[in-house]
Amino acid sequence: MTPHKLVITGAGHVGSAVLTDAMKMGLFGEIAVIDTAPGVAYGEALDQYQAIGALTLTNVNVHEGTTADYTDADVVIVAAGPSMLPDPNDPTGKPDRAILAKVNSETIRQVMGDITAHTQTAAVIIITNPVDTLVWIAQNEFEYPEHLVWGTGTCLDSARLRRRVADHVGIAPASVAGFMGGEHGMAAFPILSHLTAGAVATADLPTTYGVDPLDPAEVGQAVVDAAYAVFNGKGWTNAGVAQAALSMARSYLLDEKTVFPGSTTLRAEWGHDGDVAMSFPLAIGAAGVEKRLPLTLNAWEEEAKERAAIAIQSAMTDADCNY
Amino acid sequence: MTPHKLVITGAGHVGSAVLTDAMKMGLFGEIAVIDTAPGVAYGEALDQYQAIGALTLTNVNVHEGTTADYTDADVVIVAAGPSMLPDPNDPTGKPDRAILAKVNSETIRQVMGDITAHTQTAAVIIITNPVDTLVWIAQNEFEYPEHLVWGTGTCLDSARLRRRVADHVGIAPASVAGFMGGEHGMAAFPILSHLTAGAVATADLPTTYGVDPLDPAEVGQAVVDAAYAVFNGKGWTNAGVAQAALSMARSYLLDEKTVFPGSTTLRAEWGHDGDVAMSFPLAIGAAGVEKRLPLTLNAWEEEAKERAAIAIQSAMTDADCNY
Amino acid sequence: MTPHKLVITGAGHVGSAVLTDAMKMGLFGEIAVIDTAPGVAYGEALDQYQAIGALTLTNVNVHEGTTADYTDADVVIVAAGPSMLPDPNDPTGKPDRAILAKVNSETIRQVMGDITAHTQTAAVIIITNPVDTLVWIAQNEFEYPEHLVWGTGTCLDSARLRRRVADHVGIAPASVAGFMGGEHGMAAFPILSHLTAGAVATADLPTTYGVDPLDPAEVGQAVVDAAYAVFNGKGWTNAGVAQAALSMARSYLLDEKTVFPGSTTLRAEWGHDGDVAMSFPLAIGAAGVEKRLPLTLNAWEEEAKERAAIAIQSAMTDADCNY
Amino acid sequence: MTPHKLVITGAGHVGSAVLTDAMKMGLFGEIAVIDTAPGVAYGEALDQYQAIGALTLTNVNVHEGTTADYTDADVVIVAAGPSMLPDPNDPTGKPDRAILAKVNSETIRQVMGDITAHTQTAAVIIITNPVDTLVWIAQNEFEYPEHLVWGTGTCLDSARLRRRVADHVGIAPASVAGFMGGEHGMAAFPILSHLTAGAVATADLPTTYGVDPLDPAEVGQAVVDAAYAVFNGKGWTNAGVAQAALSMARSYLLDEKTVFPGSTTLRAEWGHDGDVAMSFPLAIGAAGVEKRLPLTLNAWEEEAKERAAIAIQSAMTDADCNY
Repeated sequence: MTPHKLVITGAGHVGSAVLTDAMKMGLFGEIAVIDTAPGVAYGEALDQYQAIGALTLTNVNVHEGTTADYTDADVVIVAAGPSMLPDPNDPTGKPDRAILAKVNSETIRQVMGDITAHTQTAAVIIITNPVDTLVWIAQNEFEYPEHLVWGTGTCLDSARLRRRVADHVGIAPASVAGFMGGEHGMAAFPILSHLTAGAVATADLPTTYGVDPLDPAEVGQAVVDAAYAVFNGKGWTNAGVAQAALSMARSYLLDEKTVFPGSTTLRAEWGHDGDVAMSFPLAIGAAGVEKRLPLTLNAWEEEAKERAAIAIQSAMTDADCNY
Repeated sequence: MTPHKLVITGAGHVGSAVLTDAMKMGLFGEIAVIDTAPGVAYGEALDQYQAIGALTLTNVNVHEGTTADYTDADVVIVAAGPSMLPDPNDPTGKPDRAILAKVNSETIRQVMGDITAHTQTAAVIIITNPVDTLVWIAQNEFEYPEHLVWGTGTCLDSARLRRRVADHVGIAPASVAGFMGGEHGMAAFPILSHLTAGAVATADLPTTYGVDPLDPAEVGQAVVDAAYAVFNGKGWTNAGVAQAALSMARSYLLDEKTVFPGSTTLRAEWGHDGDVAMSFPLAIGAAGVEKRLPLTLNAWEEEAKERAAIAIQSAMTDADCNY
Repeated sequence: MTPHKLVITGAGHVGSAVLTDAMKMGLFGEIAVIDTAPGVAYGEALDQYQAIGALTLTNVNVHEGTTADYTDADVVIVAAGPSMLPDPNDPTGKPDRAILAKVNSETIRQVMGDITAHTQTAAVIIITNPVDTLVWIAQNEFEYPEHLVWGTGTCLDSARLRRRVADHVGIAPASVAGFMGGEHGMAAFPILSHLTAGAVATADLPTTYGVDPLDPAEVGQAVVDAAYAVFNGKGWTNAGVAQAALSMARSYLLDEKTVFPGSTTLRAEWGHDGDVAMSFPLAIGAAGVEKRLPLTLNAWEEEAKERAAIAIQSAMTDADCNY
Repeated sequence: MTPHKLVITGAGHVGSAVLTDAMKMGLFGEIAVIDTAPGVAYGEALDQYQAIGALTLTNVNVHEGTTADYTDADVVIVAAGPSMLPDPNDPTGKPDRAILAKVNSETIRQVMGDITAHTQTAAVIIITNPVDTLVWIAQNEFEYPEHLVWGTGTCLDSARLRRRVADHVGIAPASVAGFMGGEHGMAAFPILSHLTAGAVATADLPTTYGVDPLDPAEVGQAVVDAAYAVFNGKGWTNAGVAQAALSMARSYLLDEKTVFPGSTTLRAEWGHDGDVAMSFPLAIGAAGVEKRLPLTLNAWEEEAKERAAIAIQSAMTDADCNY
């Protein structure tokens, strides 16, 4: 018996959150943690390894890893590189994900080089930002099965969308179904034309719940602002994205075919063919990305999607992507 | 500290499944099991009580109960009475839930009498069939806060609907949002006009997934037939309804406001006012049923809803309901 | 990616409980249910399959199986055959597990024949009683890796022991460490010389907790009686053994090396070499039974162990075992 | 229905870990986060609040809190103040928990003053270090029910002990039962005379497992060193203590009576009466600390316990405790 193995590449705030949640999933028998900073991966792994004795956790072989751990990995979650960098010209303002592009594009090229040197069969789930740019690099600059690579994309933006709509009408987020699409970041847009809350479509919310109608631009901006409210208070955000990555991993390992808004290179979808990666609904199963569901967009959403493409391509240019 | 307390009334196949799942929720400190058959509640409770030592379960004070246990109960789940009775004229055919009405209406009158004699503050979640008739009796023949009483209704039918649609398009049921409404049983109907699969509306499924369109009559019949396929193979169905009842209990205990298709007396909703109980989406929180969401129905659904009302009222008549 | 696969052989009260718990583990992507009674495995699997849509469960491919499902199984849990049979001469008295030997020895020979015809790599966890006899047959009459076969043995008896000691001193069963050994059934015996409650050894319980001392014969009898108290009230016991089997499966799948009191053929242990199978502590990991921990017994325990050996060999004789 | 409410006081690395784990327990309907640093509690709470929409989590009302939130709290977990401070004379050496005493004793006096001004009924679980000193202050300088206040104490040290012994013999930590006692920190000591691994007592480990005997001084030092190995690599330790505090909270909320090695003022126990607080096994139920289990110590352990008392009293002196 060979237990399922996870490699977490990058042990910062996000990678550490992935590790914490993965320890409690009961799905992995081995977890390797890789980080370039001396001692950090060792310390994170050891902290979790010792904690097993305190808890009702499963006994996981969690340890510091090396690139050799990619060889028999079932899943690799990439959280390497900084989450956000402040704008050097406006340190107290909103950080711009685009300026991460130069730094983290080199990171993903290094990581994907290491992965492809060791395996062609692990699912590679990318969290590091700007995630859409990094997914494009991983899928287009390396000889790795494209359907085994994707990004967490707008999973977190979608969580914030469901939270906001849930609060607007007064129900639980679990009872809201719908997605943000496009760029993970400032050019994410809500696909309200395909959202329901308690099975009620967006257009019917005022009648059913007695609330104001939702304006897509306002909702989209609120979701983007929400990220920065967390960022300003806490210094980073990691609570949701770790779970999103692991839910995707579970859907792959158990062949669940759950639909997530994940980032992948557009292939004759939403008016683009290979020139940009962004998020739309993907069904993830044992074969990786098994279904691609580019939703029909209304006029506002169509415009928002094009704005997202331009924003992402700007970061891709910063990252020297030859798209 | 007074831990949350659950009373399970009825320890047959369904009540036993509720007990099994409740032991693993980690939410109840005390569970009392009541049954009229000598020894059964004692045996079920003892089996679970002893099992605690084998597992990583929380330590629950689970025991045989009496009606006095209603006094400090937070939640009562009513699973008393038989689940289904075969048609005496066609024992190998489909059982008719209506013929349960006479037997189980007396059961619910006994149980609600016992409950109201001891408390006015517990949430009362009814599973016993015909659930719509029993909910009507509990809400209209007793002086008990109406918003604290509801039925699991079409939760299970809705699960089967999501399963069927999920299989039709090839994704996970968790990625399908939508409900069955009306009667729990043969007159349940799918509300396809408010359903999405991977955020795609029913009408767009053929285009997006390359599948045949869904016909509501065919889908509704398939869901009803599915129940009987289980019934004929296993002798009863209990896998889903126990979890549905406990998910409702959790939404109440934690004030989650999750939306479930639950059964309650219509109050100027869907064209009825007090003359019938059936399922439509309800948000359940710390105050019980906090929001009532009668979805707008299309012509087919409107007709199906009226057929459900007639079917339920027929059972209500059998149960001597003065509606 | 090939998800972990479980085959459950036998869909009676115990097999159904295994299925119910396995659906909630989040560890299996596929579960096949096999039963000789027409329709039962189909009905049980379909009930669970439909329930997925109601719950926050993972999406499991659960289906009726055939012996061909053994081919790629990771774990097989054998719950085929009746759990207990009443004594034909004393239908209201204690059932004798020995009289099951003839019936269920043929069952295990059939099942192991089917398994060995399809695989040599699945872990085979036997629950069916008399479990010790059936484990001996499976390990000694078939060419199957011995370390991949074991029985749940006294896991359930040990749970009852911990429950009883916990109640005696007034703490949670999770804080009691210790095992029953020997036969799963009437000749199970508590190994009190190796038990602690809140880290306090058996001999020190009166001083520390102010309770009466524990008498091993009384405790052992109480544990055996407890099983029959459940049996008489409920008609069967299944709450604990399903979880025990699945905890063993998890320890195997995740390579946890957790210690369980499981049944296996004694090999120069406890004074026996190949002539009997019974329970003592086993550490279960990715290689199956990885460590065998025959505890040092005191005089009373030594006698009880020999009584267990005689009782089991009596059943083995009934089962035509050539030991 | 009033859902269970948790207040987390202090939102640093440890408080944040408590929050992350508490969100996933499914036991709290409301969580308030209090921190003195502007924005941090708001950011942490908002990050979790938004994450609910991404996950299969229960819908928790998590928000920034004020001292008024203590009024209806069921549980308060105190993680305020720094976890460790480097030795100013040897910044790269081992930090000394004693030098935290001055800083964090003022913190606990402030927090306990706030708590007692609002409630007398919440369980107060202290994590902040030096935890023994802070527990003594909370129990002896305030008019608050003593049995409702305790510290996580050597829960984490005990986890590390079980991990180490488990690795020594090659089994899972869950199969090791036993505790560290005394000071949480450098003067913690293993109570090997009451430890079992797979039900095998410490003295019998070499015979049963074929390993070297355990030396208590070596084991104790290794456990203490393990903490600093994590500290040096990661900068802090938080993986285990958050779960320990929440497991204690659950045992209280569900009246489980689980035994934990927790810190409390000695009352005619282990040769001390009111002059020191340290860890020994405590059973925690709905009444708070319900049983106190000062284990009988052997000569080495007795000496180690006195060394722990001296170390703790040294910190208590630094904290101006009038013991």
